[in-house]
Amino acid sequence: MVSEEHPRYRSLTIRDKLVEGYEKGIVSTHGLIAHGRGEAFDYLLGEKTSDTALNATKVACAFLLTAKRPVVSVNGNTAALVAEEIAELHVITKIPVEINLFHRSRERIERIAHHLQSHGLENILTGLDFVELLNIASQRAKVDKRGIYQADTVLAPLEDGDRALALTQLGKIVLTVDLNPLSRTALTSTVTIVDELTRAMKNLITLAKYFKTTGRMNKLAMLKTSFDNRENLEASYKIMLERLQSLVS
Amino acid sequence: MVSEEHPRYRSLTIRDKLVEGYEKGIVSTHGLIAHGRGEAFDYLLGEKTSDTALNATKVACAFLLTAKRPVVSVNGNTAALVAEEIAELHVITKIPVEINLFHRSRERIERIAHHLQSHGLENILTGLDFVELLNIASQRAKVDKRGIYQADTVLAPLEDGDRALALTQLGKIVLTVDLNPLSRTALTSTVTIVDELTRAMKNLITLAKYFKTTGRMNKLAMLKTSFDNRENLEASYKIMLERLQSLVS
Repeated sequence: MVSEEHPRYRSLTIRDKLVEGYEKGIVSTHGLIAHGRGEAFDYLLGEKTSDTALNATKVACAFLLTAKRPVVSVNGNTAALVAEEIAELHVITKIPVEINLFHRSRERIERIAHHLQSHGLENILTGLDFVELLNIASQRAKVDKRGIYQADTVLAPLEDGDRALALTQLGKIVLTVDLNPLSRTALTSTVTIVDELTRAMKNLITLAKYFKTTGRMNKLAMLKTSFDNRENLEASYKIMLERLQSLVS
Repeated sequence: MVSEEHPRYRSLTIRDKLVEGYEKGIVSTHGLIAHGRGEAFDYLLGEKTSDTALNATKVACAFLLTAKRPVVSVNGNTAALVAEEIAELHVITKIPVEINLFHRSRERIERIAHHLQSHGLENILTGLDFVELLNIASQRAKVDKRGIYQADTVLAPLEDGDRALALTQLGKIVLTVDLNPLSRTALTSTVTIVDELTRAMKNLITLAKYFKTTGRMNKLAMLKTSFDNRENLEASYKIMLERLQSLVS
């Protein structure tokens, strides 16, 4: 156990959660290494949500709440880190959840479904009744007929570059959470939240509740049209640059 | 297998070596994550040894070769990535090697000892006859009575921040290899080599051989006194900064 006084307590707690997911067979070894890469970028962000990330979260929330057929795409790392938040978002928004894996196996899909169910999530789309997306090799092309395939808007945190590209090429709105503002996923998606996933999901839930309960749904259209993802990513680079610069001077 | 033509061939080969170490029970799950973090920083460094890293390696070599009671501290990732180089350094310098783990278990210590032995290393200190360092909670405080405990100089690659700090507080010279120039380990250590471990160890061996065989041992004192770790880290930040800038514009 890490002490709460440890300067990097939150980051280490998140890491423990991921390792626990790995031990349960939810997270792959590649997922562990990918998480470490994200940690490095979060370090450069100062391990906190930036204003630009919070704004991107607001815009992503606007797209989700105004979509006709939204879906949340969950992979191993996402399930391990934010199962509770995924379930809570579902309670607030009723948006269906699909399990969609990079390293796909029926066994791992079932384990993840079980893990999400233990957090109260029902009616999970497992992608076992699937269609293949164009332009992607192998198992990673498979999406659920009732989920991503028919969706107009996909919240796909920690997505890989090929799939993010394939989804946008099909005309879908892709909302992602990615700590690397240079990744192909970040550059390809409609809205990229450059933030650590547990922070981003907590913010998304707070925002969804706010918009739902205050009847401010009319503000959402404006949020969507005034957003430029390229500007948003550049603002994130700048934060990393400034952090490095402040350490140099 | 990754093709040798792949632009990131070396990085992917190193990753394969680490995953192999994981499968042998040498590397911990946390070690896989830590490696991913290093990969992100190495990417920002352009995946090559910088001039400042090479200079820090020279200074670390000077400290090691002039120490009265030096020791090399080896953890799971270090054993998986550079067992051969650790054994070679021992042949050249006769510096004792101690196995010192963050996620300590007797089983993993024995596996690592076996792995190092299979690369020709003898008389490994396993820390089973240990003393506890001050200011660190739990298992991580344990150091070998005949090793780190009595040492004046510790080469501790991929060290954690708490232990690096505890060792310097005990008045020891701490030499580390860490791709993150912002980490507490990097900031706390006497000499931080901001480089990928296999590259750094190969350089360290070349330098140790050079100083030993050319009788240039008199140069070592000057190398030590003219070194400023803060300046060294700032030079590494600058390289990352410039690379980020070049990717943005």
